[in-house]
Amino acid sequence: MKPILLMFSIMLSLTPFSKITMDKKEKIATTETDSLTIANFFKNSLTKGKSYDWLRDLTTNVGGRLSGSPEAQKAVIWGENLLKSLNFDKVWLQPVMVPHWVRGEKEKAYFTVNNTKYDVPICALGGSIATSKNGVIGEVVEVKSLKEATEMGEKLKGKIVFFNRPFDDALLNTFHAYGGCVDQRYSGAATVGKFGALAVIVRSMTSSIDDNPHTGAMSYGSIPENEKIPNAAISTNAANLLSKKLKENPNLKFYFKQSCQTLPDEPSFNVIGEIKGSVFPNKYITVGGHLDSWDLAQGAHDDGAGIVQSIEVLRLLKLSGIKPKHTIRVVLFMNEENGLRGGKKYAEEAKLNHENNIAALESDSGGFTPRGFSIGSTANNYKLFLGWKKLLSPYGLNDFSVGHAGSDIGPLKSDSISLFGYRPDSQRYFDYHHTAIDTFDKVNKRELELGAASMTSLVYLLDKYLN
Amino acid sequence: MKPILLMFSIMLSLTPFSKITMDKKEKIATTETDSLTIANFFKNSLTKGKSYDWLRDLTTNVGGRLSGSPEAQKAVIWGENLLKSLNFDKVWLQPVMVPHWVRGEKEKAYFTVNNTKYDVPICALGGSIATSKNGVIGEVVEVKSLKEATEMGEKLKGKIVFFNRPFDDALLNTFHAYGGCVDQRYSGAATVGKFGALAVIVRSMTSSIDDNPHTGAMSYGSIPENEKIPNAAISTNAANLLSKKLKENPNLKFYFKQSCQTLPDEPSFNVIGEIKGSVFPNKYITVGGHLDSWDLAQGAHDDGAGIVQSIEVLRLLKLSGIKPKHTIRVVLFMNEENGLRGGKKYAEEAKLNHENNIAALESDSGGFTPRGFSIGSTANNYKLFLGWKKLLSPYGLNDFSVGHAGSDIGPLKSDSISLFGYRPDSQRYFDYHHTAIDTFDKVNKRELELGAASMTSLVYLLDKYLN
Repeated sequence: MKPILLMFSIMLSLTPFSKITMDKKEKIATTETDSLTIANFFKNSLTKGKSYDWLRDLTTNVGGRLSGSPEAQKAVIWGENLLKSLNFDKVWLQPVMVPHWVRGEKEKAYFTVNNTKYDVPICALGGSIATSKNGVIGEVVEVKSLKEATEMGEKLKGKIVFFNRPFDDALLNTFHAYGGCVDQRYSGAATVGKFGALAVIVRSMTSSIDDNPHTGAMSYGSIPENEKIPNAAISTNAANLLSKKLKENPNLKFYFKQSCQTLPDEPSFNVIGEIKGSVFPNKYITVGGHLDSWDLAQGAHDDGAGIVQSIEVLRLLKLSGIKPKHTIRVVLFMNEENGLRGGKKYAEEAKLNHENNIAALESDSGGFTPRGFSIGSTANNYKLFLGWKKLLSPYGLNDFSVGHAGSDIGPLKSDSISLFGYRPDSQRYFDYHHTAIDTFDKVNKRELELGAASMTSLVYLLDKYLN
Repeated sequence: MKPILLMFSIMLSLTPFSKITMDKKEKIATTETDSLTIANFFKNSLTKGKSYDWLRDLTTNVGGRLSGSPEAQKAVIWGENLLKSLNFDKVWLQPVMVPHWVRGEKEKAYFTVNNTKYDVPICALGGSIATSKNGVIGEVVEVKSLKEATEMGEKLKGKIVFFNRPFDDALLNTFHAYGGCVDQRYSGAATVGKFGALAVIVRSMTSSIDDNPHTGAMSYGSIPENEKIPNAAISTNAANLLSKKLKENPNLKFYFKQSCQTLPDEPSFNVIGEIKGSVFPNKYITVGGHLDSWDLAQGAHDDGAGIVQSIEVLRLLKLSGIKPKHTIRVVLFMNEENGLRGGKKYAEEAKLNHENNIAALESDSGGFTPRGFSIGSTANNYKLFLGWKKLLSPYGLNDFSVGHAGSDIGPLKSDSISLFGYRPDSQRYFDYHHTAIDTFDKVNKRELELGAASMTSLVYLLDKYLN
């Protein structure tokens, strides 16, 4: 823009001097109130927080809680009791049918090279069928992608297909690396079943080079029953060793055995609590995580952390004496891991009841130190949210990217709702994700509490400024 | 400012249109080069990094390495060999005499209430004298500050003084909480010795409520020999229990025994490597951490992380084919923990040799995920550094606060040097600091590598833009 034009446009945009002063004063006062309120959330979370004690209870007394399991049912009761003890305006269970997959006996795997046997840490993937009772044994074909496997086609017949594309460690955000690999886990078996492959093993979804196999959901899609083959994950150490040994001895035999199965759907529940809005009781802001976890461990970071943080949001609001204008709901979603039935049910009911959901926030990226929020909203609202950065950046919340917010709240998506994903630091998440070591001791108390306060601050600002 | 004045001032500040365009183009090109160079540092650190392997080696093969110990000497040789293997232009050892305090036999402590004996996790503080051979036993007086202890004065005679002021958990940065408590550890014994107290025990310096006693430096200052009393730290769980039991039973007896002693100073070394500057070989940029650690553990976060990151800075610069304009030095400082002799010696030699040190960067806050740098410099230079925020914030480096940079580089301070402390996230640091659990497994590979790349990026920018 030329200088003369620049000046002209400044003249046009200038408002009278007195008006500026008034607005500025008001704005400063509002900002100060917000700043103090937010500081108070953080102080209370760090010094009078409940999230860590709740997480200890959920992870150690309820434990792993896969949908349809007795532990998942125990978790529902745990959640309902906890919400009721906090004196919210309303607490209820929202029924939902969920898948019921069981792992069965502990899996077993090894391969042999020149009479040396190498034991392999392995776990069945959620949704997989079992091997035959005696297990499956076969030669191994290593591939790096679904595309490569598809191109090999009939060459895979009678083989165990080994998907071994590792995380791209150059990516800063480990979720992006996960996103770049997880198709192997989710769709590997569905891709090669039609070629007559015997089974699929997949490298665990992590950058960490260790002995923990990572489970997770897989799907056969709509392939015929006779093309369904057993599918398991092996540890990254084992994947590296196997890949190395395959180069030296392409005919080595790999054996594994698993006895998992899918049982009929089970009744379960989303657990919901709410504080009634004082001005717009029929407009809703939802905050939540998922109550179910994989069965291998305690589900501490995934997603016990999100559960206790979400409950803490409502408790911290109450503790600060804030009477929200909108109705604030906490939802402990059931069945994020292998079906998303809870998230779908919640959105379905919201639609049936013509609910006006203006915003939703999910925490499902672990209980790590705060980095920001990912946001899905209209451009106008996004501008509003960016204006809050100054209030939130002192707490390490600098990342306000446009992006995926959360699986459970995804089905609520519409033109009028703003969706948020709480984004803690991502570096350690996939060290634990879906493994036996996702346990309570991996969660740092203060990091968890900072997350709860971050979420509370966002919900406070949404309630105050979003209509 | 009134609109008309505002416009006038804009007119004055406007440069010719063509000039703006030229400068802007150049600036964009430079920024793009810098941006790509920095991206490359991060990529190389994350995919071809050496810091994690080096840290494994230092922590597990050398282990804890307190100044004056055989392990510290082994660490010097480790450092020298490593630097030599990296083909820097020059590698040498800088001699320095260091204190030599030894812990002796494992400490023992307990207290008894109504014939029930409570064992207490305890460790002598660095610099403390031993108890008598049979240990020390006495009633306990709990205080929360040096001031409170001083006010009690003669009432402390014949007592064991228990300093029990906890971390202020409301503070976001745990180093601030540490700063608010550590006087109890450092000066507690010197404060109450003159009142005839028998001994001092201090609550461990951490927010974490657990069973790990945290050692660390203490000083008797210049008090007479006969006022020196034994000084130890107890775990936070034990501190809470003792405090509780004292309220119920103020006359309970506390016993502990330690056999630590200070031996004569030992010869040791700073280990130094450098890449010669191509334009200003006599201007220096120093990057370093401290090679010594406490004896209780492997010194992984404190400060093995800083050591391997600092070495990695020079390796990553070389790997990118960058020929620095200034001479870049890595210094593995000896004796930060209990004397700072290495840092003082380095600054002393720099002065003797009339070295022009333009900048120094220290990493001594753990190998955690990046948050920023704390900076001590002239106001003008600080403005220059703030201008780099856009280049660094994509990597989580948002905090560019004015503040303490690092103990080892502190003695270099002058009007002309800019000092930087690498600041990773602080939440977990004091879970491990100076305890037996500061071990290799507590360091996340990617977090460590991100730190090394952050430091490399800063050194690159300093070399390019600071004169």
